[in-house]
Amino acid sequence: MNDKLAIDTLRFLAADMVQAANSGHPGMPMGAAPMAWTLWSRHLKHDPSDPTWTDRDRFILSAGHGSALLYGLLHIFDYGLPESELRSFRQLGSRTPGHPEFGHTVGVESTTGPLGQGLAMAVGFALAERMQNAQHPDIVNHHTYVIAGDGCLMEGVSHEAASLAGHLGLGRLIVLWDDNSITIDGGTDRSTSDDQLARFAAYGWHTEGVIDGMDVDAIDQAIARAKDDPRPSFLAVRTVIGRGAPGIEGTAKAHGSPLGDEVLAETKRLEGWEHGAFVVPDEVQDDCAALAKAGAEAHAAWQERFDAYEAAHPDAAAQFVRTEARILPDGFAEALDAVAGDAPRATRVSSQACLKALHPLMPELVGGSADLAGSTGTPMGGELVTRDNYAGSEIAFGIREFGMAAALNGMVLHGGFRPFGSTFLVFADYLRPALRLSALMKVPAIYVLTHDSIAVGEDGPTHEPVEHIESLRLIPGLQVLRPYDDADTARAWRLALERTDGPTALVLTRQNLPQLDAAAFASDDAVVEIVATGSEVSTALGAAEILRGEGTPTRVVPVLDRRDYAPSADVKTVSVEAGSTSGWHGTVDLAIGIDHFGDSGKGDEVMAHHGFTPEKVAARIRELLA
Amino acid sequence: MNDKLAIDTLRFLAADMVQAANSGHPGMPMGAAPMAWTLWSRHLKHDPSDPTWTDRDRFILSAGHGSALLYGLLHIFDYGLPESELRSFRQLGSRTPGHPEFGHTVGVESTTGPLGQGLAMAVGFALAERMQNAQHPDIVNHHTYVIAGDGCLMEGVSHEAASLAGHLGLGRLIVLWDDNSITIDGGTDRSTSDDQLARFAAYGWHTEGVIDGMDVDAIDQAIARAKDDPRPSFLAVRTVIGRGAPGIEGTAKAHGSPLGDEVLAETKRLEGWEHGAFVVPDEVQDDCAALAKAGAEAHAAWQERFDAYEAAHPDAAAQFVRTEARILPDGFAEALDAVAGDAPRATRVSSQACLKALHPLMPELVGGSADLAGSTGTPMGGELVTRDNYAGSEIAFGIREFGMAAALNGMVLHGGFRPFGSTFLVFADYLRPALRLSALMKVPAIYVLTHDSIAVGEDGPTHEPVEHIESLRLIPGLQVLRPYDDADTARAWRLALERTDGPTALVLTRQNLPQLDAAAFASDDAVVEIVATGSEVSTALGAAEILRGEGTPTRVVPVLDRRDYAPSADVKTVSVEAGSTSGWHGTVDLAIGIDHFGDSGKGDEVMAHHGFTPEKVAARIRELLA
Repeated sequence: MNDKLAIDTLRFLAADMVQAANSGHPGMPMGAAPMAWTLWSRHLKHDPSDPTWTDRDRFILSAGHGSALLYGLLHIFDYGLPESELRSFRQLGSRTPGHPEFGHTVGVESTTGPLGQGLAMAVGFALAERMQNAQHPDIVNHHTYVIAGDGCLMEGVSHEAASLAGHLGLGRLIVLWDDNSITIDGGTDRSTSDDQLARFAAYGWHTEGVIDGMDVDAIDQAIARAKDDPRPSFLAVRTVIGRGAPGIEGTAKAHGSPLGDEVLAETKRLEGWEHGAFVVPDEVQDDCAALAKAGAEAHAAWQERFDAYEAAHPDAAAQFVRTEARILPDGFAEALDAVAGDAPRATRVSSQACLKALHPLMPELVGGSADLAGSTGTPMGGELVTRDNYAGSEIAFGIREFGMAAALNGMVLHGGFRPFGSTFLVFADYLRPALRLSALMKVPAIYVLTHDSIAVGEDGPTHEPVEHIESLRLIPGLQVLRPYDDADTARAWRLALERTDGPTALVLTRQNLPQLDAAAFASDDAVVEIVATGSEVSTALGAAEILRGEGTPTRVVPVLDRRDYAPSADVKTVSVEAGSTSGWHGTVDLAIGIDHFGDSGKGDEVMAHHGFTPEKVAARIRELLA
Repeated sequence: MNDKLAIDTLRFLAADMVQAANSGHPGMPMGAAPMAWTLWSRHLKHDPSDPTWTDRDRFILSAGHGSALLYGLLHIFDYGLPESELRSFRQLGSRTPGHPEFGHTVGVESTTGPLGQGLAMAVGFALAERMQNAQHPDIVNHHTYVIAGDGCLMEGVSHEAASLAGHLGLGRLIVLWDDNSITIDGGTDRSTSDDQLARFAAYGWHTEGVIDGMDVDAIDQAIARAKDDPRPSFLAVRTVIGRGAPGIEGTAKAHGSPLGDEVLAETKRLEGWEHGAFVVPDEVQDDCAALAKAGAEAHAAWQERFDAYEAAHPDAAAQFVRTEARILPDGFAEALDAVAGDAPRATRVSSQACLKALHPLMPELVGGSADLAGSTGTPMGGELVTRDNYAGSEIAFGIREFGMAAALNGMVLHGGFRPFGSTFLVFADYLRPALRLSALMKVPAIYVLTHDSIAVGEDGPTHEPVEHIESLRLIPGLQVLRPYDDADTARAWRLALERTDGPTALVLTRQNLPQLDAAAFASDDAVVEIVATGSEVSTALGAAEILRGEGTPTRVVPVLDRRDYAPSADVKTVSVEAGSTSGWHGTVDLAIGIDHFGDSGKGDEVMAHHGFTPEKVAARIRELLA
């Protein structure tokens, strides 16, 4: 292997891409190419001829602005990313967008760019690997590698993710820190004095540093030691941003601007690079082809193991195949149908009943809560996932909403699981950046968000969502479902699990709700139609009964997903939802909701205070009709 | 001082409150009362007769669910919170809501409950104290104390906040960790293995532990050592949640449920408590009165120093008074008026011009960016705030959006500053929980959010806000302003700074915009009205010119704040905004926007691809009219 030639190829491919685009981030690839090459050439288990091989190692470029480095790797290893795509880096319609996008470019394991989230998703990948290994020990056995930058480590989610990984003993997670002491605004000493090695050691990680970022053998050996260590590993690799670019290397100028034609030419000259732009020297092509061939052989050997597994354990193998394909098990719908009862209960409790019903059928259904399992109703009756028992189904994510959501994304991306995570709806704000990535990546993570209105009551406005339902609906591609009773909650879970191309938020109540008879909704010759979601469906029904009693035929239309609502013609339409009215305007004649913060008090009193009683809703409708 | 009696008073007041409400969190107060009492009786500098004394120490209960402890303190120290309010704990209309609310209860320094944010706000308090001290050394000199729980430390924002505090050497920040090993779902060993002392040491903090949470003298001495140490201090105080309650203490059951009448009675009996519910023994009343008197004397001594300062340095003292009162300086409006120029520029650049114009006039105007200062245009020409120079005006918050926003809240709450923080609009998601608290607390923090649409271009969908403008508008009480040129940006800054009762988000472009002539907006006999914000105002004007050229009189209405828009009657109305259309429906006949994720490509090409050109807007309007 000609390491230097391959590394320079990656460096100059990246610089050429950025130069051609006249936009992008050359500094990170030019500094981090040695560690990336060392990892990909000496450790990464992958088969470029089949990027979907389930037992491949995962590589997450958490410093997603270094996308040109990843595209260079995918190009030289022949993942089907041709030179023409490198030449159209960051151009509309290319496969080489500014930041790596999952589902857009073959070989990209996750969308990264929003800092810290790659690292946090990698924890989900590494957890899923151990959990799937626990189910299928012979056929799941791989590593998760991350290259993270200073930004990733400054973000709060790095704390949540690293703490969770340390607690769960995710020894197959290996993080290489591109330690270049530079952020966008200048030296890291402008804003941080953290001792990162000490910090990660405090989380229970194996740490090593400082490793010379130019020393391929040192990096290689550190990775080898990391693989041997039972703890997750954090390797500080000292690099120079924009290495080799005269006048620019080691400064913030190298971060996010093209080098310029002259500096790039001079850099190549100083490095003794004799090839044209975008050229991959034959020797590098040959080296990569040999590595790819070895990867294909490893894949073939795995396939033999899988075939033997299938022969010996056909049911287990079938389950592996089914869960990898996200196919729901037989009896799934029937199990959910059986959940509905007669007694009033909160939809968070209905949801727990759904989970308990599905748990025996779906080993892939795993999840938990950000330390609100009892409140949000996530325990399914399975075992807790611990460092000593990855075969569990219940995950104690800790008080780490954002880390939880990022882990869900990583688990979905890894495959083999249908994970869910829960917290109070008001704290969806804490995990929103990861929820946006779920939607952008079209991964079917499931968010169980309870205590969904001011009916939370005594905990007061800090704990009472108002704007949250609507703010979730704004996220493109997020399915937002707010059921009104047992059967409706079962429908919501069914929709969430049947969906494979995007995330779902289940929005559930703290307070008890009656089980409703769908026959009560309709009304002959209705002159008013009340559309409502969740807990306000029963309120709407109560208002309808009052109005009907006064001779005003009133129909109630419950909607799980607001997008399903089509207002009827020739009637007055009214929405009732205990949250922002903003999204209802333009759809209904009157939107009843709450557009200010709530109060601390008994839940029913707070709801009544803000107009959510049948009587008060009926009065508003009477006014509308008058 | 009868420490034990006072501590038991606080413990049982809290338990009585929770019992009366039949709702709340007795465990934290019962375990943490000794440290709270030690702090308030032996260290806290405060004057209950004047809770607004500017040089008081600040006490932040980051574990806000322990509100009953804080209310107990405010009650026994006579902050005007009578027994009747304790008896109406968590009831609608009381001064004792479920979580402490700033502005609602005298003596509550900040709203807490969303975990981690109290600690993160405290960093802002402590930073503001040092910065104000640098301006007025003789009259600002106090500490910021925090009681934080396990949840606060698990949240990611604790990393951002602690790292920033360590970097800035905020030695007057002292955090007491209520280390009770219990979270809502059970033992902390379910979800964390962090060595918190090692972690905080890695941030450059002074740490001490484990301190016996029952040992008043040990706590006292640890606080004294913390005050002597130049670093921020983290003290691990080992407590027992729900201490003393038989069968409940030390378990998660003590966290969030009333003890029950029987257990409470038994707890009091075991403790030898002979008083009725809500009783403050005379001896405790006397002790607190003596402490309050000492506080009033300290305040009087400070007032003498201030009077001397005023006599010696009348201008500096006047500035102190002016900035404390958030009164804008003379020449403020004129300075902003002078910003407008003729050349096209991005509103982020216009914003920087505003900041530079205001900087010489406003020593209270301080702020910076989450490592995007150059991109978002926050440098004003002042010095960087460092541990060696708190007299600066520019704050390098680091890649810590959430920590930044929480620090802004703390700085505003502390007083003396009008702080701003900036990042890309898409990363407003990262700081949203703190922005919600800004709005809930009605504090005038200013958020500078740039790169405000898909026009960001090459960085692609991870960096392109779509739903964000609308999602900000949903937060009750947040002023969202999106200016279209220099003069409009100056207007926006004026509105942001004139506002003293709530936060403002300035939503600014990456790309250049023309300077517009307001005369071009109007049209006689308009049949169409295009309402637009920010960068789409010029697009709308271009569309209007096309339509006018075709004989369709078209008016353009730019709005800084959408709430100001009132559609005209008798014309067709169209909105153009490069973001979610959701909030425009019901207001206009046609809402032109983007309700899906963007793409990586040249900014103008991405905008054109999604319909944001004068020609494409004109075409949509032509269709509407047809």
